[in-house]
Amino acid sequence: MRVLGVDPGTIVTGFGVIEDASGEARLVECGVTRAPAKQPIERRLLLIYEGLLDLLTRHRPNAVAVEEPFVVQAPRNAAMAVGEARAMALLAAAQHSLPVSQYPPTRVRATVANYGAGDKEQVRTALTLQLGVDLSAYPLDATDALAVALCHLRHAALDAMMGNERVTARGRR
Amino acid sequence: MRVLGVDPGTIVTGFGVIEDASGEARLVECGVTRAPAKQPIERRLLLIYEGLLDLLTRHRPNAVAVEEPFVVQAPRNAAMAVGEARAMALLAAAQHSLPVSQYPPTRVRATVANYGAGDKEQVRTALTLQLGVDLSAYPLDATDALAVALCHLRHAALDAMMGNERVTARGRR
Repeated sequence: MRVLGVDPGTIVTGFGVIEDASGEARLVECGVTRAPAKQPIERRLLLIYEGLLDLLTRHRPNAVAVEEPFVVQAPRNAAMAVGEARAMALLAAAQHSLPVSQYPPTRVRATVANYGAGDKEQVRTALTLQLGVDLSAYPLDATDALAVALCHLRHAALDAMMGNERVTARGRR
Repeated sequence: MRVLGVDPGTIVTGFGVIEDASGEARLVECGVTRAPAKQPIERRLLLIYEGLLDLLTRHRPNAVAVEEPFVVQAPRNAAMAVGEARAMALLAAAQHSLPVSQYPPTRVRATVANYGAGDKEQVRTALTLQLGVDLSAYPLDATDALAVALCHLRHAALDAMMGNERVTARGRR
């Protein structure tokens, strides 16, 4: 199984692709798409969208996992901007007929770093240990996206073990 | 000049295309894209996106105008959902290299119906008079989108009259 994880943002969108290699999670690629803040929003969204389509075409993942932000904390215009960036991941996934799962950050941290309160640095350290790759040089948005992908991989494995047919992590909308 | 107006929503997205025919605004097409609420959000967004691309390909407008919601009034998850739907219009416009203008509803109503407090019904009546077409059978989301398109056409005409090179109605983000 191969998963594309996305941490959406209208300025920086993190992405991470991991795969399950006989029970071990393996890093395929991770990085960020930076959309210049002075560009109009539609150009930035196009850049994010094209970057994601390129990843889907090159890596052919089986699923897309997206970080669902804490909307309660964010100001409404920030919530709308996150919605716009996240929509690029949802659209790209739908165009490739891939299932999309969304995970709130607390769930990602609880799954990947064993507790929900871990900060981004702790998540990166946990990922370094679990993937066996030094991730210290990667931007935190990239490792956050990788964490979402790993979170989905772990839940999918757990689900398979428990005989569930589908991962049902997806929140109701 | 031909303008595509969009009133974005994740369940119902209104669209309206109008053109300037020697100083008179003329209705080209208007309607709604309904995305079944029980479908996952990514399928709904794909439907909206494909509908908009189809309109852009068939009508080749010179500009896209999008209704900018009152984010202060909307709950944050509603704001995020509107952001997602609006992102489809922004992306489709960027892919066709079209300029995008965003107008808040008060500005649309003030331009089209002469006062900001008009309700959707009053906007529809004002449009019926200005376009010379009976719009009573159209859904209000469709006529709202038409109103955004007309608002842009009026501002563009005013701008041209005043010698401005570009319409600068776009809000800062």
